[in-house]
Amino acid sequence: MTYCVGMQIDKGLVLMSDTRTNSGVDNVSVFKKMHSWTVPGERIITVLTAGNLATTQAVIGLLEERNKAPGERLNTLFKAPTMFEVATQVGMLLRDTIAKTNAINQTTDGPTATTKFTASIIVAGQIKGMQPRLFLVYPEGNFIEASLETPFFQIGETKYGRPIILRGYERDMSFEDAVKLLMVSFDSTIRANLSVGPPLDLMVIEKDNFEALHSRRITPQDPYYLAVSAGWSEALKNAFHALPDYSLYSK
Amino acid sequence: MTYCVGMQIDKGLVLMSDTRTNSGVDNVSVFKKMHSWTVPGERIITVLTAGNLATTQAVIGLLEERNKAPGERLNTLFKAPTMFEVATQVGMLLRDTIAKTNAINQTTDGPTATTKFTASIIVAGQIKGMQPRLFLVYPEGNFIEASLETPFFQIGETKYGRPIILRGYERDMSFEDAVKLLMVSFDSTIRANLSVGPPLDLMVIEKDNFEALHSRRITPQDPYYLAVSAGWSEALKNAFHALPDYSLYSK
Repeated sequence: MTYCVGMQIDKGLVLMSDTRTNSGVDNVSVFKKMHSWTVPGERIITVLTAGNLATTQAVIGLLEERNKAPGERLNTLFKAPTMFEVATQVGMLLRDTIAKTNAINQTTDGPTATTKFTASIIVAGQIKGMQPRLFLVYPEGNFIEASLETPFFQIGETKYGRPIILRGYERDMSFEDAVKLLMVSFDSTIRANLSVGPPLDLMVIEKDNFEALHSRRITPQDPYYLAVSAGWSEALKNAFHALPDYSLYSK
Repeated sequence: MTYCVGMQIDKGLVLMSDTRTNSGVDNVSVFKKMHSWTVPGERIITVLTAGNLATTQAVIGLLEERNKAPGERLNTLFKAPTMFEVATQVGMLLRDTIAKTNAINQTTDGPTATTKFTASIIVAGQIKGMQPRLFLVYPEGNFIEASLETPFFQIGETKYGRPIILRGYERDMSFEDAVKLLMVSFDSTIRANLSVGPPLDLMVIEKDNFEALHSRRITPQDPYYLAVSAGWSEALKNAFHALPDYSLYSK
């Protein structure tokens, strides 16, 4: 499984992903699910991927045209005039990749997988002169954009970490608070589900600053991760004690 | 869907269930999923049900022998010498009910459903002279018992409300705190998933007190529910602010 979140706030975008992939519980690996491309001062585009790893790696490779010889490569993402066009291209590549793999898989000559080679992708970024934007791209290739009412997208193992985001999110929050929120959401998920695991990748995209801020890998030994994880237990306990006792409300 | 939790603490058992059942999003009803039987001073047995409603209602009916004429009824649960035997009986009835419905469903004469008539049941209670016990009964009829390491069971839509229980649970907590914990777990689930909804049913089984304590239905207008729901937003916000800022940990 996987857990990735893209969150839009007034100040920009905050992105986090885990790195655990597994094929059964006895085949667990670490793979990066956050990929980012920057043209300094002009654009920054980051994608978060969930789903079949061969599929998502193929899409990333195609976006960078890694199926061409080094000299002929021209990253597709650098040409798109808008983030909408970026999402459209990612969607088409995702759809085509899935369709191709499934078609090959259905020929009777080779081994056939029982898995469906599906995947979802969060696309986040900003191109100069336009607003930061956040999209969720479906395996079918179509996509939706974050809005005031739904300002964040989760992919992968989304349920454990959802309530805290629903509760904690505020449009005008600081990057500091947004990162705390995501750290707690990820910590909650990691504690509940073995298929999501550290290290985590964090990235902050500040509006009109076309570079990745606070881009870092958070290991289980990361002092910040440990401080949040330990601090959250304590903070939650205090939060509980602040709630009223039910006996006060009994008849 | 459904959400039910049975939790064992040193002082006894705390049980909570929602009441929403749905067959599609356009067919939503309210049904009680918590059923309890008491022999004052001797035993209290409570079951929480999740899954196909016709199946769980049939099991409850059979436990009370509602397929017999009123004069011949003798509640099966009143005869079992131990809670283990109670769980065994519930398991056999659940398994038989599912098997029977599926067998009928596979005959070619009538309409056939695409649904599987599956269900899970949490069995909680105490019989005089023995400890309070908590079981999770599977559709196959077998069951597991709560332990020091896994002191609570959830059935239905379990993921949203799980992290807070994992974090907040303490074996020696008071009933007050245990109820707070479940209220927050249910509130988190209800906010995230339409298929779980109020009113909620609450019951506390105090050790060696063979009657249902604080047994009540919590409506969305319940002052305690409103106080917890509102208080939790505030408490979480304070909890966030108590966490360290990531910039303090950046290189």
